[in-house]
Amino acid sequence: MSRNSFLTDILSTLFERRPRSARLLDDRSIEALCESLLSSQGEISGHKFAESVLKRFDGLNDEETAEFFRFLSEKLDIDTDVIARMNEAYAADPTAVNLDRLIQAVEPPRQELLRRINQVPDATAQLVGMRKKLLGMLREHPEFQRTDLDFQHLFSSWFNRGFLVMRRIRWDTPASILEKIIKYEAVHAINDWDDLRRRVQPEDRRCYAFFHPAMPDDPLIFVEVALAKGIPDSIQAILADDRNILTDAEADTAVFYSISNCQAGLRGVSFGNFLIKQVVEDLRKEIPGLKTFVTLSPIPGFVRWLK
Amino acid sequence: MSRNSFLTDILSTLFERRPRSARLLDDRSIEALCESLLSSQGEISGHKFAESVLKRFDGLNDEETAEFFRFLSEKLDIDTDVIARMNEAYAADPTAVNLDRLIQAVEPPRQELLRRINQVPDATAQLVGMRKKLLGMLREHPEFQRTDLDFQHLFSSWFNRGFLVMRRIRWDTPASILEKIIKYEAVHAINDWDDLRRRVQPEDRRCYAFFHPAMPDDPLIFVEVALAKGIPDSIQAILADDRNILTDAEADTAVFYSISNCQAGLRGVSFGNFLIKQVVEDLRKEIPGLKTFVTLSPIPGFVRWLK
Amino acid sequence: MSRNSFLTDILSTLFERRPRSARLLDDRSIEALCESLLSSQGEISGHKFAESVLKRFDGLNDEETAEFFRFLSEKLDIDTDVIARMNEAYAADPTAVNLDRLIQAVEPPRQELLRRINQVPDATAQLVGMRKKLLGMLREHPEFQRTDLDFQHLFSSWFNRGFLVMRRIRWDTPASILEKIIKYEAVHAINDWDDLRRRVQPEDRRCYAFFHPAMPDDPLIFVEVALAKGIPDSIQAILADDRNILTDAEADTAVFYSISNCQAGLRGVSFGNFLIKQVVEDLRKEIPGLKTFVTLSPIPGFVRWLK
Amino acid sequence: MSRNSFLTDILSTLFERRPRSARLLDDRSIEALCESLLSSQGEISGHKFAESVLKRFDGLNDEETAEFFRFLSEKLDIDTDVIARMNEAYAADPTAVNLDRLIQAVEPPRQELLRRINQVPDATAQLVGMRKKLLGMLREHPEFQRTDLDFQHLFSSWFNRGFLVMRRIRWDTPASILEKIIKYEAVHAINDWDDLRRRVQPEDRRCYAFFHPAMPDDPLIFVEVALAKGIPDSIQAILADDRNILTDAEADTAVFYSISNCQAGLRGVSFGNFLIKQVVEDLRKEIPGLKTFVTLSPIPGFVRWLK
Repeated sequence: MSRNSFLTDILSTLFERRPRSARLLDDRSIEALCESLLSSQGEISGHKFAESVLKRFDGLNDEETAEFFRFLSEKLDIDTDVIARMNEAYAADPTAVNLDRLIQAVEPPRQELLRRINQVPDATAQLVGMRKKLLGMLREHPEFQRTDLDFQHLFSSWFNRGFLVMRRIRWDTPASILEKIIKYEAVHAINDWDDLRRRVQPEDRRCYAFFHPAMPDDPLIFVEVALAKGIPDSIQAILADDRNILTDAEADTAVFYSISNCQAGLRGVSFGNFLIKQVVEDLRKEIPGLKTFVTLSPIPGFVRWLK
Repeated sequence: MSRNSFLTDILSTLFERRPRSARLLDDRSIEALCESLLSSQGEISGHKFAESVLKRFDGLNDEETAEFFRFLSEKLDIDTDVIARMNEAYAADPTAVNLDRLIQAVEPPRQELLRRINQVPDATAQLVGMRKKLLGMLREHPEFQRTDLDFQHLFSSWFNRGFLVMRRIRWDTPASILEKIIKYEAVHAINDWDDLRRRVQPEDRRCYAFFHPAMPDDPLIFVEVALAKGIPDSIQAILADDRNILTDAEADTAVFYSISNCQAGLRGVSFGNFLIKQVVEDLRKEIPGLKTFVTLSPIPGFVRWLK
Repeated sequence: MSRNSFLTDILSTLFERRPRSARLLDDRSIEALCESLLSSQGEISGHKFAESVLKRFDGLNDEETAEFFRFLSEKLDIDTDVIARMNEAYAADPTAVNLDRLIQAVEPPRQELLRRINQVPDATAQLVGMRKKLLGMLREHPEFQRTDLDFQHLFSSWFNRGFLVMRRIRWDTPASILEKIIKYEAVHAINDWDDLRRRVQPEDRRCYAFFHPAMPDDPLIFVEVALAKGIPDSIQAILADDRNILTDAEADTAVFYSISNCQAGLRGVSFGNFLIKQVVEDLRKEIPGLKTFVTLSPIPGFVRWLK
Repeated sequence: MSRNSFLTDILSTLFERRPRSARLLDDRSIEALCESLLSSQGEISGHKFAESVLKRFDGLNDEETAEFFRFLSEKLDIDTDVIARMNEAYAADPTAVNLDRLIQAVEPPRQELLRRINQVPDATAQLVGMRKKLLGMLREHPEFQRTDLDFQHLFSSWFNRGFLVMRRIRWDTPASILEKIIKYEAVHAINDWDDLRRRVQPEDRRCYAFFHPAMPDDPLIFVEVALAKGIPDSIQAILADDRNILTDAEADTAVFYSISNCQAGLRGVSFGNFLIKQVVEDLRKEIPGLKTFVTLSPIPGFVRWLK
């Protein structure tokens, strides 16, 4: 197929008449929409189905949500007979074709479903929210854990460190982001905007967060750091209102006094190590006088380590 | 584990002494480095191994490259006996734990290896380049196709439509991007910068590309569109130097006269449909007078379709 | 002078030894610094003097400030004898040279002083602050009005409409800007961040501000607009917490319910007309359904006008 | 006047019926349009006149252009009788009111005209172009020099150092800017895009330019710098194609080998000193190993100076 006929082909597909109108789609169950999405050939028609699935999910009550997760866990599961057959074929003749068949047999269809849903703008954040609901039902429905494995598998791939972007959070950060910092702070609660300002505006108080390009309005995790001369006595000394603000040249210690995950739906996808690593690297480069990196331990004393 | 002890834990790991210096790492073979990367527990030490693997790969000659791909294809392959056992266990007792084991048995270790390599900044583009080399060896080494399946699997996930960003390419686009448009144009060659200017500067000549946030300097695919009054007679009429430039209000036809994939290493990951879909949507919104969307067919006439 | 010798010349000047160190400068009076700044030939040495003048001004108490303004008003004033002579010369022989001399005779040296101070980064905002202090002393020291004329003249030129940039203020605007909106709102006080959010976050509540590129963190003036269906009964209806939010398609009326100047030091430099003009133009383009543009009159009813 | 009635007033003015339509304006002479602009009370109606003046000027042939400049120089000149009277009044009673009158008497009305023209978007660049034409006619029409004084006065104020922004020019700078670098290079001609690339892409070749926020697409002046180890023998060594590229750590010398003004219409407004000063400062901060700053003298040898 020549390149130009390829283009022609795409354009034809784009404009082919589709028998079901968008209106009709809305009347079908979310399970039916998922099946249409999975069996759709063109990416374009799939797009419509994906949007409908997300919209429909948004309107489900708890019981319907559980039913939907049951559908994912049972109807879109793998078939062990097929796997056994494919495995034998591959063992006998380890070609790529046979491997591909085996891999496809082991991947539950719900994983491809989630991948297709993610083609819609802003779907990533909604899928993270979907998993949050799933996690909340695991105690009552342990059988949904099979579905959770697929969420975890996909999120580990999508939120790979190579795709994350670190941003310093400052007082001139958009307020819509800052209010999420207030909301998600999990160690030392941020009482109000003035409290927040004390943690992000002075040059000796730092806050850094990871973002994913597909969810630019939602921090994934953030860490708060106080630059100090010597190790502070207490968290109160760090958060005090009337303290002296240090210049970079005066600081010799960086206290990592708080770290908070923001997305419950990303449980098990680890960001903390990477974030702290990059913050330490950046601070060392920016302020060569920093000699001690430390965290405040809740119970007895301080944990300290030298570089 | 309390949150703060979690933080303490991370920081300790970050600064633990590591016996091997970066210098020592460099003396080991790329295969040894890959094994270290796969068995590394901390993300931090993994980071160093990943960097070393990429740097080492860069310096391999053709023979060594083939050897490395052989290592991936054979040593980091799946074990069919294990799969059979895990499959039986899951068939007997379909729990999440058993499913997880089965899934892990079917996923070749090289897939996790590639995922870990991708934690390094700019690794994504280098992995796309790695697969380009792999594709070039498939004819001679068809057994590498098993490894290619893993590249394809990961790239399909990483380059999911939801993560792509469309940008209009204009004359005020960075020159470093524009030179890639010149280089990758595959249908109607762009002779020089003046030729390029004719295709991106006038308001009735459009060019749109998809980018991935982890490869912001590299377009993935681009399409060129001419706005016209009626369907042009020929590609020459579209690319002529001395033609009249139409205002948006005068145009009634959009001619998609060229589409080019830029990344050989992304073969099989499909972007064209999505790009054209979004361009058509955007053009319709921006220029309501557009009635005809068409492509130039290479041989006899025109392919036309109405919206 | 060839171009390259011009470059040589610049570089030599840049690095010539200067007898007075920066330290010494600091010991001299602000008036002496001003005279050095006015008589400095190189832009480079002038830079140091300008910085010193601003720093020194910052530390003056009220009495010293008044003394400084007296210095500007009396010592850096024009000389009427010189003007008379230059005017006669120009009347007798209206050449450009004579005109230039006349113009220079009429321009008080303090105007050139202010222009030179403005070469320093962030000086513009500080000069606006300087005039604010001057305005506060005019009642007691009406003789300072001559100096105020020069501020006004320069500010009218610097804050020319062509240099202003309009920005919509949203909930994702930097918090450092938003807190200034809270502070400067002069008609209907903004009580707290939640009150602010109600005025900038919903799509039917708009806020637009003018900025100057040399003061990007400081809005100059802003206007608040409510989109409505029909004219609201009262300001309470506009600012209510629990109202229905309209879509753009539902709105037919734009209520300009508040406008606030932010910079006391820019008194007499008019921005309001231009801001409202551009907001009206932009809203018309964005929401063609808007038919009525109205303001809330404080006393009896509404002022309305149709487009 | 209360604040709200001020808002009402603005809005009323904005929408008052105007007897002359935009169409009618176009039929009048540019001189008549200028007089309307000068006598217009509202900024809003002035806006329309200003746009018309610029559009009309664009269409003038050389003879008409000269006629327009004659109009500015003669009809919009100062009145020496008035100046004499105002000067006497101010000498007798040096109040701010009298000073204001004197200042206004000495400022030719064409200066206010140019200021009002500048209220239109993109007017600044067009006024710079207007002065370029004026400069080209000065030899034949020395009487236009009086008008040139006003351009110079305004441009000195508008292009004050405090308003300029320095940007590094790189290979990823918009091509629309880069083509202007090619065009304006005045010392060592840039032959083509590959030649340009050699001057802006390697890390040891730098180019920096000043921009004004109201003309973001037009560099005002730029300087080219080569980082080197020791002083290069010749300009050929600097511009060679096949040389070794230095790392920042290897460089000890910065050679300022070219500086070019871009805007003929800004003649007499000096930027070079400031640009070089800032480049030297920035390079010193970025690369502490730089010890020698030098320029290449065209005739015998090198001019060198140490920091």
